[in-house]
Amino acid sequence: MRSLKLSKAFTLIEPGPVIFVTTNDGQKNNIMTISWSIVQDFTPTFVIVTGPWNHSYAALLKTKECVLAIPTVDIIDKVIGVGTCSGEETDKFAKFNFTPLKAKHVHAPLIKECLANIECRVVDVIKKHNMIILNGVKAYLDSSRKEKRMIHSVGDGTFVIDGRKIDRRKMMKSKLPDGV
Amino acid sequence: MRSLKLSKAFTLIEPGPVIFVTTNDGQKNNIMTISWSIVQDFTPTFVIVTGPWNHSYAALLKTKECVLAIPTVDIIDKVIGVGTCSGEETDKFAKFNFTPLKAKHVHAPLIKECLANIECRVVDVIKKHNMIILNGVKAYLDSSRKEKRMIHSVGDGTFVIDGRKIDRRKMMKSKLPDGV
Repeated sequence: MRSLKLSKAFTLIEPGPVIFVTTNDGQKNNIMTISWSIVQDFTPTFVIVTGPWNHSYAALLKTKECVLAIPTVDIIDKVIGVGTCSGEETDKFAKFNFTPLKAKHVHAPLIKECLANIECRVVDVIKKHNMIILNGVKAYLDSSRKEKRMIHSVGDGTFVIDGRKIDRRKMMKSKLPDGV
Repeated sequence: MRSLKLSKAFTLIEPGPVIFVTTNDGQKNNIMTISWSIVQDFTPTFVIVTGPWNHSYAALLKTKECVLAIPTVDIIDKVIGVGTCSGEETDKFAKFNFTPLKAKHVHAPLIKECLANIECRVVDVIKKHNMIILNGVKAYLDSSRKEKRMIHSVGDGTFVIDGRKIDRRKMMKSKLPDGV
């Protein structure tokens, strides 16, 4: 898992994939699956929608740290498995055979089996709208991974997988930040 | 463009596509392209990231209304065209040959050439984070349309198109709201 320039981290979240959020509450690691996330800026600022109904929420508020990990289609059933059980009674790293890797700036673990990981700090909590604002502090990409297609949740139990890529860099040039 | 059950409207935004936001400031229609949007709840509540740098922002704040329109890959160059010019000097409906259709509950127009449209009211503005919270009040789907593949922005000038669909309704059953 090699470092990815932090200025490129938003390109992992902008396409709207299903992601994992890992936390460590001081005692144990946990993972949740989230489909509701956005980029909030070209700087690596992200918004996730979560609340007390997620077991990870308490750890997020307490530690103010997490990792966003990006899974791909080859592990879709683990993505759904993680999203349909609770860390309250399950050690999800053990159950789904994920390998936690030590992060550099946060106590939440990276997930080795994911395409990418972003270490984040919680910079704001908007309780009224169940939103948490995150700042990415370090990013990683496993560029040796063959399967790179991300998963998009439709919300009705079906999922759309990344298809063809279209290049419009020239048309978009005026709107892109430097270094992406 | 036929009505879509409002309880299904979130399934248009949840996959994370690039969308259009239309407004009408009382004098003229406008369109902007947005990649930063999320579902905030299974009820049709959406969050878009926008601010004073978008010409549409003033109309959004003034009228508290808009339409989210979902384009597909066949019109990708119009999506980028709309996103790289400003409504301040351009009539985007005319320039890009889009047909505005009258909405039922808002003054912002639907876009006939899109796969789907959602009439929305602004219910909150979080200026600190450049976020606008929207409530969907009516949704439409053009189910006769052959091309249904949405567009996902990577953020570096490339775009990923919807690929294969995977059905995991059974596994997801415990997590899905009724009626989707």
